[in-house]
Amino acid sequence: MSILIKGAELNGAVTDVLIEGNRFSKIGADIECPEAAVINGAGKAIVPSFNNAHTHASMTLLRSYADDLELHDWLANYIWPREAEMNEEDIYHGARLACLEMIKSGTTGFNDMYWHYHGIARAVEEMGMRALLSSVFIDFNDAEKAAEQRKLSERLFEETKLYSDRVNFALGPHAIYTVSEESLRWAKAFAQANNLHIHIHLSETKKEVDDCLSQYGCRPVEWLERIGFLGPEIIAAHVVHVTEHEIGLLAEHRVKVVHNPVSNMKLSSGSFRYKQMKNRGVFVSLGTDGCSSNNNLDMFEEMKISALHAKLIENDPTVLPAHEAFLMATLSGAEAMGWDCGKIETGKLADCLLVDLTNHRLAPGYQLIDDLVYSADSGCIDTVICDGNILMENGRVKGEEEIIARAREYKKRFQ
Amino acid sequence: MSILIKGAELNGAVTDVLIEGNRFSKIGADIECPEAAVINGAGKAIVPSFNNAHTHASMTLLRSYADDLELHDWLANYIWPREAEMNEEDIYHGARLACLEMIKSGTTGFNDMYWHYHGIARAVEEMGMRALLSSVFIDFNDAEKAAEQRKLSERLFEETKLYSDRVNFALGPHAIYTVSEESLRWAKAFAQANNLHIHIHLSETKKEVDDCLSQYGCRPVEWLERIGFLGPEIIAAHVVHVTEHEIGLLAEHRVKVVHNPVSNMKLSSGSFRYKQMKNRGVFVSLGTDGCSSNNNLDMFEEMKISALHAKLIENDPTVLPAHEAFLMATLSGAEAMGWDCGKIETGKLADCLLVDLTNHRLAPGYQLIDDLVYSADSGCIDTVICDGNILMENGRVKGEEEIIARAREYKKRFQ
Repeated sequence: MSILIKGAELNGAVTDVLIEGNRFSKIGADIECPEAAVINGAGKAIVPSFNNAHTHASMTLLRSYADDLELHDWLANYIWPREAEMNEEDIYHGARLACLEMIKSGTTGFNDMYWHYHGIARAVEEMGMRALLSSVFIDFNDAEKAAEQRKLSERLFEETKLYSDRVNFALGPHAIYTVSEESLRWAKAFAQANNLHIHIHLSETKKEVDDCLSQYGCRPVEWLERIGFLGPEIIAAHVVHVTEHEIGLLAEHRVKVVHNPVSNMKLSSGSFRYKQMKNRGVFVSLGTDGCSSNNNLDMFEEMKISALHAKLIENDPTVLPAHEAFLMATLSGAEAMGWDCGKIETGKLADCLLVDLTNHRLAPGYQLIDDLVYSADSGCIDTVICDGNILMENGRVKGEEEIIARAREYKKRFQ
Repeated sequence: MSILIKGAELNGAVTDVLIEGNRFSKIGADIECPEAAVINGAGKAIVPSFNNAHTHASMTLLRSYADDLELHDWLANYIWPREAEMNEEDIYHGARLACLEMIKSGTTGFNDMYWHYHGIARAVEEMGMRALLSSVFIDFNDAEKAAEQRKLSERLFEETKLYSDRVNFALGPHAIYTVSEESLRWAKAFAQANNLHIHIHLSETKKEVDDCLSQYGCRPVEWLERIGFLGPEIIAAHVVHVTEHEIGLLAEHRVKVVHNPVSNMKLSSGSFRYKQMKNRGVFVSLGTDGCSSNNNLDMFEEMKISALHAKLIENDPTVLPAHEAFLMATLSGAEAMGWDCGKIETGKLADCLLVDLTNHRLAPGYQLIDDLVYSADSGCIDTVICDGNILMENGRVKGEEEIIARAREYKKRFQ
């Protein structure tokens, strides 16, 4: 199927955009393509869609279930007991709700780590999104558990080949305090042998750093370097408690760092050092984390709050300007996940949004990127396209009522 | 006109709500009122609408015109020159766009300070909102300017009587560094004589405090106490740079303090000390500030960011829980402005929202207030009622296209 977008604004100029298969094939004036479905782009701007670089999608099921609590209380008394009760069917419905919410707020790709892998993979496949999925790999230094987890990873890697190209497998060692050194070394080797990404939580809390210091005599990033774990295939979420030396290591090894400002603020985890990361050339993208620590998957909010947070902690309003936030949320996310999208350019994968320029939040309309980062909300999006397919048109996603109804039923079961 | 809302959720229980004239007249089961217009409340929750306690509404005209700049550069080279060019007609169109945006995001009342008073008053009157309006009173210690400004205030106070009860006049001495001591004393006396509120910027930047210390040998709040200015009619915006002693004074004099987290973060003004304010019993409400330092008027975002900000700076995830953010944005705002609304209760002014409980961002739906603060966006609102009149129904406001088109025309004139 081909799609011809006629007369939309691209970087401020009116143009036509042709999508053939799953890629942008032509961008320019007066494109003709008789077999293409035509979208009238008048009054709309075409921009890259968002890529959410760190989430736990199915935690939509726990949205607003428990807020404003101390981290341990929150996890031990609310989140973990509920997670233990979820089955693959629950996870599937949670992931469908997450996909719906992401599409409605302009996200077409995400990097996920959660339980019941195929529940999520199935939802992504059906909803038409792009995702890098990892199962939560935790062994707590238990050899038997480790063997089981490695076997599961190998199996999921193979099984993922049955899905479309939009569903990609990554390894998901949860964190350095939940995964043994042996398993981390195994994950690194398996990733290198099979050209895979590794998704890990890193230096999220002060406790993680303190424990690492007392166990290994060095800090988490330093320890990971020591065991040869760092590299460009590592997608490290949070990365809040780091020294200048660690920031240097992250840059040197081209680690893909993910900033999660809302979650870090809501859980009082600490402050991501964007300015220092940027100055040292660290690769930074943006993620929402799961819905129970956010409580949504909205990249508009995440962009704005990333900018506000950086200006606050640096006491400098020029830090993290709008265009950098937008880049983190679009192209940088795509690059972190290894996808050839995140940019409206001939040859790139056709993941994009049509933004409604007549929305009140985009008026008067001086600078579109500033408007998108600082003023827009999901209501500004008219059309969402992923991999050359239309996922949302006129603000509507097919089947949304049923998806929401199923999620509300889940609540009833547990209350 | 009467409105009967049938079968909506109020605090988790399904009920009917009758509005007669501009107040809630009955709340309970099976209310009948044959002459009332009926709204089907099934699948909807009724909650108080938001009151934005500090803004400069017509600055919508400068939304995303200049961002990510140093404060002085931003004001001197971008904002002030543009403001100087605006006439009353511009201000009217800017205020209409602001009212539209506020209604769409669930706000029915606001506290404003800006130029060309009647441009704003006219927009508020037509759009059906409630507002406390003040003209920017600046005299720069110039006696002639001061006399002129006092005369203008007296005139606007009288002229405001020609508007409906929804449009209220307040005095607007801009700040201690732009208004003479004599004019502040005059404003205080005039307010007391006529039972008026006074809207002022207070301790927004470190420079304001440093200048006050060198000029008067004390800090801004202390100085205002010394000249007898503090009192329950004072609505003080920002109030970022304050000591424990000043927080004590604000509590003692029952000053209405307004927290503006987004603006304070975006301009790197400093951090509002919510926890200390609350512990000392200071009255705190919430405001967005103007669109050029935000860049929207969305109280959903402001609530969420207020909570995130407090948790970050206190390193404590239990500080500023969702229900306190919601209260600041609704009832506290109403009380600050002296309005008998902000609560769904028999006898109160009928300002409220119908929230669409079938929206994906409110699923599964454990705790509505947490969902509204941490997950919702403007798309979750179905109906907006102010003063017993429906301002938005099914997400639509009458005449919105024309309002937006006018704002976009304004841009063309200046580019």
